[in-house]
Amino acid sequence: MSTHIASKKILLAPAPRKVAEIFSNDDLARLKAIGELTIHESAPFPDDRFKEVASDLQMILGQIDLPESRLRRTGALKAIFNVEGNFLPNIDYDYCFAHKIRVLNISPVFAEPVAEAALGMAIDLARGISVSDRNFRRGHEEYGLSANRRAFSLFRQDIGFIGFGDLAKAILPLLRPFACRIRAYDPWLSAELLQTFECEAASLDDVLRHSRVIFVVAGATTQNQGFLGPKQFSLMQPDSALVLLSRAAVVDFDAMLDFAARGAIRVATDVYPQEPLPATHPARQNENTLLCAHQAGALETALKRIGKMVVSDAELIARGLPPVLCKPAQPETVLSFRSRPVDHT
Amino acid sequence: MSTHIASKKILLAPAPRKVAEIFSNDDLARLKAIGELTIHESAPFPDDRFKEVASDLQMILGQIDLPESRLRRTGALKAIFNVEGNFLPNIDYDYCFAHKIRVLNISPVFAEPVAEAALGMAIDLARGISVSDRNFRRGHEEYGLSANRRAFSLFRQDIGFIGFGDLAKAILPLLRPFACRIRAYDPWLSAELLQTFECEAASLDDVLRHSRVIFVVAGATTQNQGFLGPKQFSLMQPDSALVLLSRAAVVDFDAMLDFAARGAIRVATDVYPQEPLPATHPARQNENTLLCAHQAGALETALKRIGKMVVSDAELIARGLPPVLCKPAQPETVLSFRSRPVDHT
Amino acid sequence: MSTHIASKKILLAPAPRKVAEIFSNDDLARLKAIGELTIHESAPFPDDRFKEVASDLQMILGQIDLPESRLRRTGALKAIFNVEGNFLPNIDYDYCFAHKIRVLNISPVFAEPVAEAALGMAIDLARGISVSDRNFRRGHEEYGLSANRRAFSLFRQDIGFIGFGDLAKAILPLLRPFACRIRAYDPWLSAELLQTFECEAASLDDVLRHSRVIFVVAGATTQNQGFLGPKQFSLMQPDSALVLLSRAAVVDFDAMLDFAARGAIRVATDVYPQEPLPATHPARQNENTLLCAHQAGALETALKRIGKMVVSDAELIARGLPPVLCKPAQPETVLSFRSRPVDHT
Amino acid sequence: MSTHIASKKILLAPAPRKVAEIFSNDDLARLKAIGELTIHESAPFPDDRFKEVASDLQMILGQIDLPESRLRRTGALKAIFNVEGNFLPNIDYDYCFAHKIRVLNISPVFAEPVAEAALGMAIDLARGISVSDRNFRRGHEEYGLSANRRAFSLFRQDIGFIGFGDLAKAILPLLRPFACRIRAYDPWLSAELLQTFECEAASLDDVLRHSRVIFVVAGATTQNQGFLGPKQFSLMQPDSALVLLSRAAVVDFDAMLDFAARGAIRVATDVYPQEPLPATHPARQNENTLLCAHQAGALETALKRIGKMVVSDAELIARGLPPVLCKPAQPETVLSFRSRPVDHT
Repeated sequence: MSTHIASKKILLAPAPRKVAEIFSNDDLARLKAIGELTIHESAPFPDDRFKEVASDLQMILGQIDLPESRLRRTGALKAIFNVEGNFLPNIDYDYCFAHKIRVLNISPVFAEPVAEAALGMAIDLARGISVSDRNFRRGHEEYGLSANRRAFSLFRQDIGFIGFGDLAKAILPLLRPFACRIRAYDPWLSAELLQTFECEAASLDDVLRHSRVIFVVAGATTQNQGFLGPKQFSLMQPDSALVLLSRAAVVDFDAMLDFAARGAIRVATDVYPQEPLPATHPARQNENTLLCAHQAGALETALKRIGKMVVSDAELIARGLPPVLCKPAQPETVLSFRSRPVDHT
Repeated sequence: MSTHIASKKILLAPAPRKVAEIFSNDDLARLKAIGELTIHESAPFPDDRFKEVASDLQMILGQIDLPESRLRRTGALKAIFNVEGNFLPNIDYDYCFAHKIRVLNISPVFAEPVAEAALGMAIDLARGISVSDRNFRRGHEEYGLSANRRAFSLFRQDIGFIGFGDLAKAILPLLRPFACRIRAYDPWLSAELLQTFECEAASLDDVLRHSRVIFVVAGATTQNQGFLGPKQFSLMQPDSALVLLSRAAVVDFDAMLDFAARGAIRVATDVYPQEPLPATHPARQNENTLLCAHQAGALETALKRIGKMVVSDAELIARGLPPVLCKPAQPETVLSFRSRPVDHT
Repeated sequence: MSTHIASKKILLAPAPRKVAEIFSNDDLARLKAIGELTIHESAPFPDDRFKEVASDLQMILGQIDLPESRLRRTGALKAIFNVEGNFLPNIDYDYCFAHKIRVLNISPVFAEPVAEAALGMAIDLARGISVSDRNFRRGHEEYGLSANRRAFSLFRQDIGFIGFGDLAKAILPLLRPFACRIRAYDPWLSAELLQTFECEAASLDDVLRHSRVIFVVAGATTQNQGFLGPKQFSLMQPDSALVLLSRAAVVDFDAMLDFAARGAIRVATDVYPQEPLPATHPARQNENTLLCAHQAGALETALKRIGKMVVSDAELIARGLPPVLCKPAQPETVLSFRSRPVDHT
Repeated sequence: MSTHIASKKILLAPAPRKVAEIFSNDDLARLKAIGELTIHESAPFPDDRFKEVASDLQMILGQIDLPESRLRRTGALKAIFNVEGNFLPNIDYDYCFAHKIRVLNISPVFAEPVAEAALGMAIDLARGISVSDRNFRRGHEEYGLSANRRAFSLFRQDIGFIGFGDLAKAILPLLRPFACRIRAYDPWLSAELLQTFECEAASLDDVLRHSRVIFVVAGATTQNQGFLGPKQFSLMQPDSALVLLSRAAVVDFDAMLDFAARGAIRVATDVYPQEPLPATHPARQNENTLLCAHQAGALETALKRIGKMVVSDAELIARGLPPVLCKPAQPETVLSFRSRPVDHT
């Protein structure tokens, strides 16, 4: 069945991402089959261009500004796709909800690669893998049981999640074979929801106190800036491990590194308050810290799945059906998010 | 029901391991409940001592020499447990098979921790985790997509096993959530057996050619010394990853490192032809190699499981039942093994 | 933290269900802690009562009529929960979407028990379990291989889903250990969504042609009344099995039974065009049909989970958060559903 | 590599099974590639024929008598395969163990189909599936909640195993998605072994007392004839379910049916003290019993897997390697088995 509606148009303005980065040729062809495609790769998107195309727009793919003044010019708009992975304050969300315009983002594409990296980082901290490698390069490695004095296994451990969104849900199946007891803290969710994932709802303090490995996967919101600080780190078990994956803004970063430097805890982080990290930042010489370079999600294969996810949901929307893969904005929470926009891919 | 047979004795001579290293107090108490326990921690075990205890011995736990001359002195011997994890040429196996004496080893305790480390090492090679950490410490890390130019994900990859014993079987469930296609080469097994594990039997060359990550988990035998050499490494895909976990003797170690140094492949290894590795060994500065210090198996918790596994099977044997946890020597293959004995735990 | 908002009220009008049927005492107490509770068990809900309570209502739990005229009287309404399990034409959905009033139903509570029954019915058809039992009672059973002339196993079979909503998603994990190849037809979903469940998107004809067991789990909509008829059944493999779980309206029921009576296919059904089934209905003597009495979902334990699911989401909504367990009405599809209302529980 | 050893012969004497029943053409060709094949389908196997072929026999496939007098005539014998699925008293096992002759049986082929049937029977008892079907045929079915007054779900139930061999291990993965708590009683196993399957070791009484569904999967031995009798059934929870799959000899069959007839428990059985069951046996009219006709294992596809399993292990044995799929006789227990021989397939 043809899903092309002759008079309907699609605006693809993916900056700071590039079209070729997120769309395969096949997926771009599928997109063109849905509607007439206008591509605009630079930012910002000028007002006069918007006025030209607005009235026929069926879908907008990108992060362009969409205040009420612009949205009012649209009449056929069904969906706006953020192709970065965040809900940003660039859109008049209330207008969209009142007019049944879907606002979607593609963050689910990152869940799988981030989960894989998270597991690798957790095993590294637990088993001392990169520490041994570093010792070899310095010429003072120890072997066997001596190498393992501080090592522990993830099998049957107490594991904690701080935040329980897409990232947590993607890490969970990777942890299943380790038969862990899993506690989770997420103030936006119910204990009943967590039970469906065979996890226990717990207070933040209980997650901190009882877990040997803690995954910090909470998105940044207006309410949770720096909510993990010295008080929280001091509740953690001696030599337990913290894996920070979501946003640096949710932790007191200096305090976290300080607890690691003192050997109280071990830390792995993929995110930083400032990127690049200053050349003289003490994190660089912290022996109890594993440093990854915001690389957990941004695999080429994941970026290409952005296009596939968008076009797949766009086809459904064009047929008058709900999207099923992208993350829909929720009226109750969308204004709470405070992720930094992506500078560049 | 009492499992104590008054006249039967147990010899516990675990050198090079120590009793306290492998037995918890509880497990030692369980052992004493089976039979009168003679403990001898130093090595070797002297002939005159053996003559004294031989006739009443029901079980021997340890790696002492047991040539036919000694075995002939036993009359009630039901089982010999190697508590290192290898079948060594210290025993007259034919005598044991002909006299229904079980010869067992505790290698299964290591499968779980080695599998965990194996997965951590594989993710590290695939995702460039310790490489990024090293770059941070040198001050020239790159971020995001730039950090990931050589990265790949394990999800839905082609994975290969060389050798398919306990280690492979323990790695498999950890890989399941990654939905990989798995080929295995093991000349001791049938394609039908591999199918029961949802793996494909493949030739060695096909495993090398088609896998993005290869786990080398073959034990050392009389037939396979150095069977992975330049010819084999040259079949591997560009930038694919080799994780060596079982024995250094099965690879041409220098050739393997050379392929890594040239960037043809990536290597992670937990074992070395010589331990400690010489201080000037070029492996120490190889940028495409992850070095672990024979630490994948020897966790304290794993060592304590040796005692539990031994006592648990010893209880069954004392009751006239077959052991169910330790690995039994197979008449067809036991003489083929050529693992180096453990120097110390 | 208290979630009670003093001026906000909750209307619980669950007819045809009873409060005690769906709420445990504990869950009712949790509901009362959210807001002042008005309970009305009989139907319909009179206009004058609605006028009295409307302005302060924060949530409505039940299936009462909610046309625009009533909804306009509400000012604080945040959510309407259908506690039957269907979206019915009792609500002005457009008004709700435009006013950010969540419309939810509790159908997910039935997915688990229906999936269990579905698996039991499928194994019964494949392995001839109830057929053998019936033969025993008639005194002409056959044994072993003779009993199994028409039997087949689910292991590694081609399985099909017609419809891929909550029921299909609950059946899937139960089928996983059988290592089946699974095709699914659902015109509301994308191939990419099905891939995330390791299922293949297929046309209706291909599902019918290639499956040995087919689960019919499509909800009744305005578009799909009787869409499975003689033409479709004739595409099925000889002696393959059809398990009808969702709604009788989606099949040509007489044709389905006729194909079974002739031995072309085997059928199991939990739903009927008319309940009770007429006393002389030929289904009752159909040898290739397994008859269940609309019992797949309505377990007492499932009914009690309705209350728990409702109160759990109601607590989140009262705190200004999105619901996470109930099924939210989607603007694109909600008007398409055509399930018969529940007569009685 | 050729595995044919010119002077070595294979005797295939599968009575009461037929060659064509258990071997596909391909598998028979593989067998012939191992050694010169002598086929003898009738029973018994005459002494003079044995004398003719004995000295060159490398493998014997079948259940022929092999007392010491015959075995002494063999000189190259490496393996004896029972193709029924039981270890019978037809062999001088001690002679075999002393001479490193492998004695193997193919019982593992039945584990998978029996497990499937077991799950189907358990769901039937729990959910009342065949009871409803029977009521429909009698014209007095009830619907929905009324049909479910005695129904329960397997999800999160307490489940028990009596016996924990291949059948139990094959049922376990099918139960995993139901998140049950599983207790097992098997006097031949250790608690530690059961833990590796995430099951709890329990006494027989505790399994009976705490389980809502009990799978009886213990093989018949010299020690356990009728060990489940009135005393044991009286420990079971009201209206709990017993699924008998292994051997009728382990239960007091009349007592079991009596407890079911009185409504104390529900029973499903695939095995009978006498087959066929007498025409007037009261089991045939027992309303709380589900009767299957020794059909859980004997699927055509399972029988064909016998040949594949045998030839696959025979190839390894011919190459001097241990078998990996068939079940090897254990010296400690092989003389304890007391299964009735198969009359016919």
